[in-house]
Amino acid sequence: MKYTELREQALEANLEIVRAGLVVLTFGNASALDRDAGIMAIKPSGVPYDDLSPETMVLIDLETGNTVEGDLRPSSDTPTHLVLYRRFSTIGGVVHTHSPFATAWAQACQPIPCLGTTHADHFYGSVPVSRKLTADEIAGEYEANTGVAIVETHLGLGLDPLQVPAELVWSHGPFTWGPDAATAAENAVALEAVAASTLRACQINPSISSVQPELLDKHFLRKHGANAYYGQVA
Amino acid sequence: MKYTELREQALEANLEIVRAGLVVLTFGNASALDRDAGIMAIKPSGVPYDDLSPETMVLIDLETGNTVEGDLRPSSDTPTHLVLYRRFSTIGGVVHTHSPFATAWAQACQPIPCLGTTHADHFYGSVPVSRKLTADEIAGEYEANTGVAIVETHLGLGLDPLQVPAELVWSHGPFTWGPDAATAAENAVALEAVAASTLRACQINPSISSVQPELLDKHFLRKHGANAYYGQVA
Amino acid sequence: MKYTELREQALEANLEIVRAGLVVLTFGNASALDRDAGIMAIKPSGVPYDDLSPETMVLIDLETGNTVEGDLRPSSDTPTHLVLYRRFSTIGGVVHTHSPFATAWAQACQPIPCLGTTHADHFYGSVPVSRKLTADEIAGEYEANTGVAIVETHLGLGLDPLQVPAELVWSHGPFTWGPDAATAAENAVALEAVAASTLRACQINPSISSVQPELLDKHFLRKHGANAYYGQVA
Amino acid sequence: MKYTELREQALEANLEIVRAGLVVLTFGNASALDRDAGIMAIKPSGVPYDDLSPETMVLIDLETGNTVEGDLRPSSDTPTHLVLYRRFSTIGGVVHTHSPFATAWAQACQPIPCLGTTHADHFYGSVPVSRKLTADEIAGEYEANTGVAIVETHLGLGLDPLQVPAELVWSHGPFTWGPDAATAAENAVALEAVAASTLRACQINPSISSVQPELLDKHFLRKHGANAYYGQVA
Repeated sequence: MKYTELREQALEANLEIVRAGLVVLTFGNASALDRDAGIMAIKPSGVPYDDLSPETMVLIDLETGNTVEGDLRPSSDTPTHLVLYRRFSTIGGVVHTHSPFATAWAQACQPIPCLGTTHADHFYGSVPVSRKLTADEIAGEYEANTGVAIVETHLGLGLDPLQVPAELVWSHGPFTWGPDAATAAENAVALEAVAASTLRACQINPSISSVQPELLDKHFLRKHGANAYYGQVA
Repeated sequence: MKYTELREQALEANLEIVRAGLVVLTFGNASALDRDAGIMAIKPSGVPYDDLSPETMVLIDLETGNTVEGDLRPSSDTPTHLVLYRRFSTIGGVVHTHSPFATAWAQACQPIPCLGTTHADHFYGSVPVSRKLTADEIAGEYEANTGVAIVETHLGLGLDPLQVPAELVWSHGPFTWGPDAATAAENAVALEAVAASTLRACQINPSISSVQPELLDKHFLRKHGANAYYGQVA
Repeated sequence: MKYTELREQALEANLEIVRAGLVVLTFGNASALDRDAGIMAIKPSGVPYDDLSPETMVLIDLETGNTVEGDLRPSSDTPTHLVLYRRFSTIGGVVHTHSPFATAWAQACQPIPCLGTTHADHFYGSVPVSRKLTADEIAGEYEANTGVAIVETHLGLGLDPLQVPAELVWSHGPFTWGPDAATAAENAVALEAVAASTLRACQINPSISSVQPELLDKHFLRKHGANAYYGQVA
Repeated sequence: MKYTELREQALEANLEIVRAGLVVLTFGNASALDRDAGIMAIKPSGVPYDDLSPETMVLIDLETGNTVEGDLRPSSDTPTHLVLYRRFSTIGGVVHTHSPFATAWAQACQPIPCLGTTHADHFYGSVPVSRKLTADEIAGEYEANTGVAIVETHLGLGLDPLQVPAELVWSHGPFTWGPDAATAAENAVALEAVAASTLRACQINPSISSVQPELLDKHFLRKHGANAYYGQVA
C-alpha cells in the first residue's frame, strides 16, 4: 500500500472532526493532498466513521479525478475537493462538515463577521458565503460547480486562501482548508466555535459590528505572519 | 423466542436514539415491522433504557393490535405506531422522540422549512405539523387518533411517506419512519440536526426562505432517487 | 449507621442530577425524607460530588432542624427543604439545582407555560415563579423564608404539590419534589428539558400559547391519575 | 525541579478548564503565583493540552518577566497575567479562556448584569468589559496593555479584585482570577454558567434587570464575607 502517510493524514482529519463534534451521521469528509505526487486521499462515501481505516481512504489522481487505489467509491464531494486543490495552489488539506452553528450561518446565507480575537486568530476577516449556484450548475457537474463557486467567490473578494481558509457554501455548509489536512480540521473546529459565539454576540448586542482593524491584524499576524510569535519555535 | 432479528432491530433503534442524545428519561420509543408476518416489535412502556434487551421487546399483531409475545405492556404509543404501519404500506420502522429541537418546533406548532442541503438529503420538502386533535379525539382513542392525524396531514399535503419520512405532532414531538427501523432512527437524528440548524438560521437571518427547488431536488434525489449515487453500491 | 436506605436514596438523587448535567460546581442538593421517623437525609454543604457517599449524607430532625447524625454541615439550603417537607405533607424528596435552562426562567422571573405533552406528562399546568422575598425576609431566616415563599406561592395558586411538583425561585433557580427522592430528581430532569424546549418554541413562534386543556388533562392523567395506564403495572 | 507544588497547581487549573468544556483547541491558559518567591508558573504557548505535565509549565520571574526555568515559550498571554499579579496584590491564580458564552458577551462588548444568585455567589455585581485598547496599545506591548486595560477598568469602577474576580476583555474573552489557581478556574466555570443563563434569561424576559441588592449581598456574603456560613468549616 503506497501513500501510507497521506492515507493516515486523511484518516486522522476525518476522525478529528468527529471527535470535535462537528459531524452528524456521515455529513462530513476530509482529504489530504500530496501535491508533488498529484494524489489526493479522501474518505469513502457514506461509510460509517467507525469503519474507517487508512486502507479505506480512496486515492484520487488530482489531474484526472480518477481513482488510483481503492475499491470504495470516494466521497460524493470529491469533485469539490479537487477543484479547491487545483485552484488554490498553496493548500494541502480540505474539510467539509455540517457542523451545527457554521451550517446555520451557511443556510442563513450570511457571512460570519469578525467580532473578535477567536475569529482573528484563524480567519483574516469575514468568512464569506459562496455565490448561489444557477439551475444549470446544479443540474450539471454539481459538486465540481460547488468548488467553482467557492473559488470564484473567494478570489472575487480578493482573498488569499491561506488568510481566509474557509467559506460557507450557500444553503449548504462550511468548507475549510489549510496547508495540510490537520490544519484544515483545526480550522473547521475554530470556525464552529466562532460561528456559535458570533451568533450569541449578535443576540446579546444586535448593533455590534466588526472588531477594530488593528486587533484583527494583531491577532492574525501574531500567529500567521512572518513575525509570528505564538506557539513554539518550529 | 421467535422473531429474533425483528426484536434486535427494534432494540437497536431504541438504543440508537438514546446514544444520539435524542431521548430524555423514557421519552422515546422505536419499533420494527415484519410486514410479511404482520408482526411489530416495540419497546415496553416506561422501562429504563439500560434494562432493555431483545427479550423485553413486545411483539404485537399488526392487524388486531394484540400482544403476541411478551409479559410487559407495550409502549403507550403503540396504537400510533400501528396506524402508521397500516396506512403507510411502504414503511418498516417507526421512531418517536422528544428530541430537544424537533420538539421545540412541534410545540411551537410550526413546520420546519427546508433551508438547506442537510434537510434536503433526508426530507423532500418541509416537515409538516399534524393537525390539532379535537377534544373528542383526545378523550377517545387518543394514541390511535394521533396516528390518524399524522396520516391525514401527510396525505392531505400529497406527501409520499418515504419522501418526507417525518411529521411533527401538534404540541407534542416528532415521529419519523423509514423502510426499516435503522433508517427511521437515522431520520430522527437527521431531523434533530435540521431542527437545530434551522432555528439558528432563522435567528441569523429572519427573512431567509426555502432553499432553491433545484438544490432540494438534487440533494434528495442523489441519495434517494432511481439514479442515486451517494454511498457505496448496494 | 442507621437510616442506611434513606442515606442511599438521598445520595442517589444527588448523583442523578449530576449525571443528568443539571449541576455546575456544587450548585445542587437533594434530600430524602423518612416521614414516619421524622428524619431527613441531605447532602453536606459545599462538598464535591465525587466525595459523596452514604456516610457523608447528614441526617436532620424534621421538627427541630437539628443534626441527628453526621459530622459535616448540611447543605446551606437545608431550611428550605425542611419547610417544604413540613408544609407539603405528601412529599418525600426535594431537589434543588441551578440547571441551565430552568435557572434562566427563574432568573427571568417568568413562569414556564405548558406548551406541550413533555410538560403535561410531569407538571399539571404552568410551573410558577415564587413571589419576591422582602428585604426583611432576606436579612432574616433567608433559606427558611425561601421555602415559605415557595409554599405560599404554590398554595396561593391553589396547586396540589404532587400535581405541580416544581417551582422556580425568583432570581434564583428551580426546586422540584415528589413522593420520593428519585421522583424529585426525575422531575428536575424533566423540568430542564421542558425549560429548554419551551424557550426554543417561544423563539420559533412568539405568539404560541398554552397547550389545549384536553391535551394537558390527557397526558398528566394517563401517567398520574387514578386511571393511569403508562408504564408497567406496579 | 523546584516549585513542584506551584507547577502542579498551574497544571491542574489548566486541565480543569479543559475538563469543564471551557477550552476549544488551545484557546486557554492558567497560571499560579508564589507571591513570596515572586515566581509564576504558566502554561507553555500553543502546546496541546494532552501533552501538558508539571515539567512543561514555564516558571517566570514576577518582577522581570524573564523565564526562570523551562525550555518552552510561555503562553503568549504571559504579560497579561504578570500585570494582573503585579497590580492586584491579593490574587494568586489567573485563568483565561474563550469559553462559549462568556466570549459571546466579551465580543458583544457588553457587561454581564447580575440577574440572580448563581452570579451573586461568585461575583459581587456586574462583570465588566474592559475599555477598548487604542491602536497604539495594540501595536505596542499588546498583551501587557490588555492587562493594563483590565486593571484600569476594574479599579476605575472601584471594584475589589476578589469581590469581582473576572473581567471580559473587549472583543476578546474572559479573564478570571482568585486567591489561588483552583479558585480562578472555579470562577471561570461559574462565569460561563452565568454567561449562558443570563443570555437566556434576557431572551425570555428582555425587560429583566439586576437582582434586588439585598439578594446580591446575601448570596455573596454568605460565601465570601467575614460571616460566611456556606461549605465546611476550614
